[in-house]
Amino acid sequence: MTESTFNDQSIAGPIATTDDLDGDRLREYCGVFGIFDLPDAAAITALGLHALQHRGQEAAGIVSYESGRFHGERRLGLVGDHFSKESTIKRLPGSAAIGHVRYATTGETMLRNVQPLFAELNTGGFAVAHNGNLTNAQALRRELIMEGSIFQSTSDTEVLLHLVARSRRVRVVDRFIEALRRLEGAYSLVVLSDELLIGARDPLGIRPLVLGELDGKYIIASETCALDIIGARFVRDVENGEIVVISKDGLESIMPFTPQAPRPCIFEYIYFARPDSIVHGRPVYQVRKAMGRELARERVIDADVVVPVPDSGVPAALGYSQQSGIPFELGIIRNHYIGRTFIQPTQSVREIGVRMKHSANRCVVEGKRVILIDDSIVRGTTSVKIVQMMRDAGATEVHFLISSPPITHPDYYGIDTPQKEKLLAATHTLEEMRAYVGCDSLSFLSVDGIYRAMGYASRDDDRPQFTDHCFTGDYPTSLTDLVEENRAQLSLLAEAS
Amino acid sequence: MTESTFNDQSIAGPIATTDDLDGDRLREYCGVFGIFDLPDAAAITALGLHALQHRGQEAAGIVSYESGRFHGERRLGLVGDHFSKESTIKRLPGSAAIGHVRYATTGETMLRNVQPLFAELNTGGFAVAHNGNLTNAQALRRELIMEGSIFQSTSDTEVLLHLVARSRRVRVVDRFIEALRRLEGAYSLVVLSDELLIGARDPLGIRPLVLGELDGKYIIASETCALDIIGARFVRDVENGEIVVISKDGLESIMPFTPQAPRPCIFEYIYFARPDSIVHGRPVYQVRKAMGRELARERVIDADVVVPVPDSGVPAALGYSQQSGIPFELGIIRNHYIGRTFIQPTQSVREIGVRMKHSANRCVVEGKRVILIDDSIVRGTTSVKIVQMMRDAGATEVHFLISSPPITHPDYYGIDTPQKEKLLAATHTLEEMRAYVGCDSLSFLSVDGIYRAMGYASRDDDRPQFTDHCFTGDYPTSLTDLVEENRAQLSLLAEAS
Amino acid sequence: MTESTFNDQSIAGPIATTDDLDGDRLREYCGVFGIFDLPDAAAITALGLHALQHRGQEAAGIVSYESGRFHGERRLGLVGDHFSKESTIKRLPGSAAIGHVRYATTGETMLRNVQPLFAELNTGGFAVAHNGNLTNAQALRRELIMEGSIFQSTSDTEVLLHLVARSRRVRVVDRFIEALRRLEGAYSLVVLSDELLIGARDPLGIRPLVLGELDGKYIIASETCALDIIGARFVRDVENGEIVVISKDGLESIMPFTPQAPRPCIFEYIYFARPDSIVHGRPVYQVRKAMGRELARERVIDADVVVPVPDSGVPAALGYSQQSGIPFELGIIRNHYIGRTFIQPTQSVREIGVRMKHSANRCVVEGKRVILIDDSIVRGTTSVKIVQMMRDAGATEVHFLISSPPITHPDYYGIDTPQKEKLLAATHTLEEMRAYVGCDSLSFLSVDGIYRAMGYASRDDDRPQFTDHCFTGDYPTSLTDLVEENRAQLSLLAEAS
Amino acid sequence: MTESTFNDQSIAGPIATTDDLDGDRLREYCGVFGIFDLPDAAAITALGLHALQHRGQEAAGIVSYESGRFHGERRLGLVGDHFSKESTIKRLPGSAAIGHVRYATTGETMLRNVQPLFAELNTGGFAVAHNGNLTNAQALRRELIMEGSIFQSTSDTEVLLHLVARSRRVRVVDRFIEALRRLEGAYSLVVLSDELLIGARDPLGIRPLVLGELDGKYIIASETCALDIIGARFVRDVENGEIVVISKDGLESIMPFTPQAPRPCIFEYIYFARPDSIVHGRPVYQVRKAMGRELARERVIDADVVVPVPDSGVPAALGYSQQSGIPFELGIIRNHYIGRTFIQPTQSVREIGVRMKHSANRCVVEGKRVILIDDSIVRGTTSVKIVQMMRDAGATEVHFLISSPPITHPDYYGIDTPQKEKLLAATHTLEEMRAYVGCDSLSFLSVDGIYRAMGYASRDDDRPQFTDHCFTGDYPTSLTDLVEENRAQLSLLAEAS
Repeated sequence: MTESTFNDQSIAGPIATTDDLDGDRLREYCGVFGIFDLPDAAAITALGLHALQHRGQEAAGIVSYESGRFHGERRLGLVGDHFSKESTIKRLPGSAAIGHVRYATTGETMLRNVQPLFAELNTGGFAVAHNGNLTNAQALRRELIMEGSIFQSTSDTEVLLHLVARSRRVRVVDRFIEALRRLEGAYSLVVLSDELLIGARDPLGIRPLVLGELDGKYIIASETCALDIIGARFVRDVENGEIVVISKDGLESIMPFTPQAPRPCIFEYIYFARPDSIVHGRPVYQVRKAMGRELARERVIDADVVVPVPDSGVPAALGYSQQSGIPFELGIIRNHYIGRTFIQPTQSVREIGVRMKHSANRCVVEGKRVILIDDSIVRGTTSVKIVQMMRDAGATEVHFLISSPPITHPDYYGIDTPQKEKLLAATHTLEEMRAYVGCDSLSFLSVDGIYRAMGYASRDDDRPQFTDHCFTGDYPTSLTDLVEENRAQLSLLAEAS
Repeated sequence: MTESTFNDQSIAGPIATTDDLDGDRLREYCGVFGIFDLPDAAAITALGLHALQHRGQEAAGIVSYESGRFHGERRLGLVGDHFSKESTIKRLPGSAAIGHVRYATTGETMLRNVQPLFAELNTGGFAVAHNGNLTNAQALRRELIMEGSIFQSTSDTEVLLHLVARSRRVRVVDRFIEALRRLEGAYSLVVLSDELLIGARDPLGIRPLVLGELDGKYIIASETCALDIIGARFVRDVENGEIVVISKDGLESIMPFTPQAPRPCIFEYIYFARPDSIVHGRPVYQVRKAMGRELARERVIDADVVVPVPDSGVPAALGYSQQSGIPFELGIIRNHYIGRTFIQPTQSVREIGVRMKHSANRCVVEGKRVILIDDSIVRGTTSVKIVQMMRDAGATEVHFLISSPPITHPDYYGIDTPQKEKLLAATHTLEEMRAYVGCDSLSFLSVDGIYRAMGYASRDDDRPQFTDHCFTGDYPTSLTDLVEENRAQLSLLAEAS
Repeated sequence: MTESTFNDQSIAGPIATTDDLDGDRLREYCGVFGIFDLPDAAAITALGLHALQHRGQEAAGIVSYESGRFHGERRLGLVGDHFSKESTIKRLPGSAAIGHVRYATTGETMLRNVQPLFAELNTGGFAVAHNGNLTNAQALRRELIMEGSIFQSTSDTEVLLHLVARSRRVRVVDRFIEALRRLEGAYSLVVLSDELLIGARDPLGIRPLVLGELDGKYIIASETCALDIIGARFVRDVENGEIVVISKDGLESIMPFTPQAPRPCIFEYIYFARPDSIVHGRPVYQVRKAMGRELARERVIDADVVVPVPDSGVPAALGYSQQSGIPFELGIIRNHYIGRTFIQPTQSVREIGVRMKHSANRCVVEGKRVILIDDSIVRGTTSVKIVQMMRDAGATEVHFLISSPPITHPDYYGIDTPQKEKLLAATHTLEEMRAYVGCDSLSFLSVDGIYRAMGYASRDDDRPQFTDHCFTGDYPTSLTDLVEENRAQLSLLAEAS
Repeated sequence: MTESTFNDQSIAGPIATTDDLDGDRLREYCGVFGIFDLPDAAAITALGLHALQHRGQEAAGIVSYESGRFHGERRLGLVGDHFSKESTIKRLPGSAAIGHVRYATTGETMLRNVQPLFAELNTGGFAVAHNGNLTNAQALRRELIMEGSIFQSTSDTEVLLHLVARSRRVRVVDRFIEALRRLEGAYSLVVLSDELLIGARDPLGIRPLVLGELDGKYIIASETCALDIIGARFVRDVENGEIVVISKDGLESIMPFTPQAPRPCIFEYIYFARPDSIVHGRPVYQVRKAMGRELARERVIDADVVVPVPDSGVPAALGYSQQSGIPFELGIIRNHYIGRTFIQPTQSVREIGVRMKHSANRCVVEGKRVILIDDSIVRGTTSVKIVQMMRDAGATEVHFLISSPPITHPDYYGIDTPQKEKLLAATHTLEEMRAYVGCDSLSFLSVDGIYRAMGYASRDDDRPQFTDHCFTGDYPTSLTDLVEENRAQLSLLAEAS
């Protein structure tokens, strides 16, 4: 196949960068929401997406369904920027809807990729929203293009759409299952078709998906916080490998895959999920506090004050403080008005980056031995500045504790991690990291420590309870695209030599 | 196939309505432009599209090509609204580009339909821009969806893309020809593929397409005025049924269809083309004046002044004046600042519609016998107001002359005509029309008169020289979609009875 | 007084440049409109301003009055851009309103200068809209600042506001008259105060102002075309030196100045007023045709075709054609979609400036001896390009005729003329101008010729019938600011030497 | 004087409502910043204003000064929305600048009121930015209008401008002092004049103002956090009644008023100032924690968990927790993506107001006796919802503690309080408030308790250390406008009877 690429900026508007701390953060790709048989489905979906906004701030979309017609609105920006408007919601009539929030990647920001994706199939309309990432999407895409399929996005999700379109099965659900069997990787999906809402989760249940209920009608969402905002009741998790088909006849559960033990992504607990969500039966806030407590057990320090990096480090710092007895104080104040990059004055004012978002609260730091707590280190660039900020504010010692293990491997299941060589822990020893960050001591929670915080005695290395390859390198599925890419590069090298 | 429809407003912005005279106008669907092997191809294309703006004001798009990569920008609004910006043009690098302007339909205004359309094929990228309309697009679309193709627009042009994608031929040009053989209707196309610019015209040459040259490089455009603006030289028309393939090796002409006599659309001369364009060797301005002269020969009136309806009636009115000796005067002044609908005050001020755009120039009308000249009557709603405006300004007689025959049949080849029942001439006798419009006399140019203005003795009814079905009902191609739709309605009626 | 200036861009938005022909045009500063005791006064005012849009495209404003409260909306852009919206009009309740359109100067584009200006006086609210220019505004401004007045704009009109505010007279009308007595220069004013609409014209009546009637209620407007659009009846001109005070009690006419003969600006006839307006009893269209006829009498040329520079040269060209018998043809086509400056491609395409707005209609120019007619020459830069365009299109001779005399002196009464050294006719002989423009011959209408077109035998040099200093240097009023500025520069020079 | 009002919406754009909790909040009017003799003064000012953003989110403005010219930019919206753009900062050249942030009132949102205000005086340009509120502004305004001054805003600050303009003193500083002597109320001012930066604080020092230093140059700002963001050093407070004049010659301190003891507003400590600011030598964070500690001493409760209302209640809750030993937990999670009002679905979903911004963290509340801590109660409407949210999440008891005394009197010095009858504590007994809010117990910190948290044994009722009339009714200055308004209403009542 001749290689060519199409860069269509037709609809890209200005994107408010919502960068926390200069890209030195892991990011989740998406959140999904679906509702069936409730009036004002799109308005309810907008609220649900607003509650899931932390899972993606780049773009949002809703597709609604009313008696044979689908209506879609997809927009760059926050949910509230567009889907709070009555005019937009009015263009989304019907009592069934699905929605999606998407996070801001650099470069590939285009409306074509904003979900839900929609296709007019032989069997009628079919809209899909996806949280996760497929590890064989490129291979499937090449195969489908060879057969004459035309792709309208660069999203991995679109291969699912073409697989369903080309299926020769009669019923939509059968087509959908046939397509799912071709997929590899992580997916939590909601699908809206004629008179059907479908939810599906990959065989390992890597990304979360929950089932809720409002007025006797079903709701599907990435997290329970999206149920809470609309006053819906949490029913249960959608199980790993389960497909739930919701229609006027109620809910049908289908388990088309060979049963496997669930293996949810541990990063939902560490960073992604909202603290008030319940993920797989565990309250996220309590898990994070427990990580702080484990940290206090693993690493005892003689210090004066426990200071969280706001907001992500707060629960672990509280846990550490409660376990250790060292007082918890807000030693760093977060500025609520971030999101813009100001002009740096040419002189006098030193580099302002981190001060735009955080400022030291000198009165609790000055002359103190500080335990600084954050949830993770990715590149470490922000950590350097935060530690320096503590020193500038008069801290006599800065002990930096991380409430999860070192990130040594990139993710391919829907978390945006930098390449391996940019991951600080992948290329530095602990002491090198400490020296780079500039703190007096640096400690990470152990892998078993994090499993203990989850309620297990330790990691079961034979059958790990979680998807945790970022710490362990143990990827739970094949990585077809990655393997093929590596092979292609190798053969290029071979040719060159 | 279950019927469902998707109404995606994701990207529709506010559209400046550029309505002349309340929709009482024929409209052309589009204009196209393509250029190969010239630096700043997109900037040149933007200029070409600006010169073609009269062919479509809804939206504009450009796709450029640079060493294996395609870049696209498509926008609602005028060419100048977006493609005059350096930032936009910079996102369209390369020395080959095609572009498209599109006219404002009501309802279906969505970015998904804005051209050029693009597909990533097995053979590489493929972008296409289309002027015209296919008469079997619905039938082909149904067939392709049945086979698993996913459509991303509601445009008839997209079927071409899928036909090319599914072709098993190896070379892009062969795939394209194979696809064209399935099409029925009117098309003037420009295609941009890897290192290729292609122009194509349907077997009858219904819509125009010309070949130009700048610095020894080829240009394809809907009209010669797009060559003039960039200082390019007019080379020749692309012939009916001809495909021109432009590459680094020069121009190759392919004639894949059974040869037929050309049959260009006569409305380009009457209304669509810019007066300074040369269409099929005839200067449009001179043809329009000749229509006015023929009108003066067919219809002698004792009057004081010849007044054109601006701007469309001006050349014919000049021709009439020169032939008849009755002075030409600007009895109607056009307001240059139109495009907005103001709030109608509740009282005192009578209906302001037509006065927003036109005003009577009382000093040349008062106490005069006026010959009012326009190029056509569609619904007649504006004509009523213009005639009344002449009377309010003191005209003692108003003779309304139309420099083309009565429009009695709708178009299916890329002109936006109302349904037959809305066409004044389809449902009224000449005297009924005169009474409706409120003039003292009403005359149309005869069908033979218009052929005489084109340089023929008369219409050759066996082999008509032009596509003129709007006047004659003589459609030049099959109308598959229309026939199938009628059949479906008939069978519904049969079932009902 | 320490000199300081304040450059407040607080509210300047992007301004669509509406440049005709690269600034090589005279420009009128403004148009005004006022209405009293009619429902929906603001909606009617918006329509009136739309009809006056040719007098100013930079900004527009309306102030309405309803039972003791004034409501104002002022905006950069065209009337239709903002005042066609129901939401805007709704914020302007009441049955009295005044409005203003303003033309686009460079640099000083700020909302603070957009009229109507408003002040809360001791006697209540006072809003004013001004067409014209004061020649002693700087002197008055300095005096007022010395006394503690704070100016909010850089507009000359604001001195009037402060003079009224500081007057010790009791009645608003008396305060207004006291203020007018201090003014020098040209003004046509509309004022809205509590339960009063006032119109005023300077002692010479330099700028136009007319009185209309709708449903028995008075309207004041710059031109009759603003009456026509709302179906109002033209009553009479507001006389030079007259103040009309309109209240619930009807119209009161006050003549507070020593009577003088009127001396309206002749440029309203040549260029500014809309052709369908009646200015001082003369239809503008007929005057322009008469200028063309006079030109034909003064300058007989053996040529094939008369071509107007559109749109300003059209009536004069028609007059020339009718008088001379040489056929009138549209040899230049105007592009309706102007207003944006496109990116110039780096190569291949020669300078596109004039081609964006005009294109040659080759079929009527090629091989012909062309008489090209325009209304005036300012800098001449456009004329060069238009003449060249005619030659490029194959004209064998180009005779350039101007339907007014050479402009040799700048204006200070509300027309935006370049400095004297930029006026082509101020610095070149006729032959030098011809050589610069590149035509075969160049002729201007004589000063007496233009007076003949106005219906006089010739200019009365003792008591000139019109303000015509641009041609004659005969300024009708003192020029205090200019004299003081020159004196200041001279004294600086003296100090320097 | 005839009463009339002018409602000029000319420049009001859409305002992002940043309402915390449905208007049930006190609001500060403004923050100010000034800098002299540092390059890129406007860029530095933008950063300073960004740090002061919590003091006003409606609008922001900067005026800069460069060799005799002033440049101003004022905008509705956040500092970062406009003043982060290079283009905006480039229009503000010079090495001296002042800036202002303003809070969102309802109704009076207009650019005319956005500060800094500017006037061209006899002595040169004069720009002023004001935090506080004058209590005799209406009286002064009436007097000035009577004398012919024209006001351009409805801001109380403008009277200062006119007083300075009308002063007959020669030096700007003398004019400014003469004007200040006429003022009554609260003001912290920064003024920019030719080669001068001036700071001034009212005789009681009600609103804060601090002096900083960067590279040996002076900075004036409302709070120390604006110094921290640019890396400037805190020098000292500007004293109550002090005027600091900063020029190339350094800093001159003038004390033109009769000396009084300072009486700063206590609400800066309770709510307005950023927790990391130092106000009058006291770290705000520590004061707030001390209020929580005092509360724990005054009110001992047997409970399981201390939960702050985020973010304002957090320091006091930490203080309470540390003093009482009851664990601090985040029982309410704040949504970071607020600021938009979504459409309420018609059915199924109960009122969503408070859930858009806050959600209960059920895992720390369920089955617990909760101590809920907030800093104040204004109307109480939000408190009702927050308490109910705790109960819905399973709290068995909810004890609501407020870390300041009941607000019984409105403010007139720059805090936006509702009218007295809307203040919950002004119209309800403690028990009525408890019943209204729906908690199990409700307690406020005592007045002496808050003075203890400030480091005093108690309030000195003879010479109160703080401006605290909201709790005590003890207003520190005359209230001329209020008295006159009441007198006018009384005389109306007398006439009516």
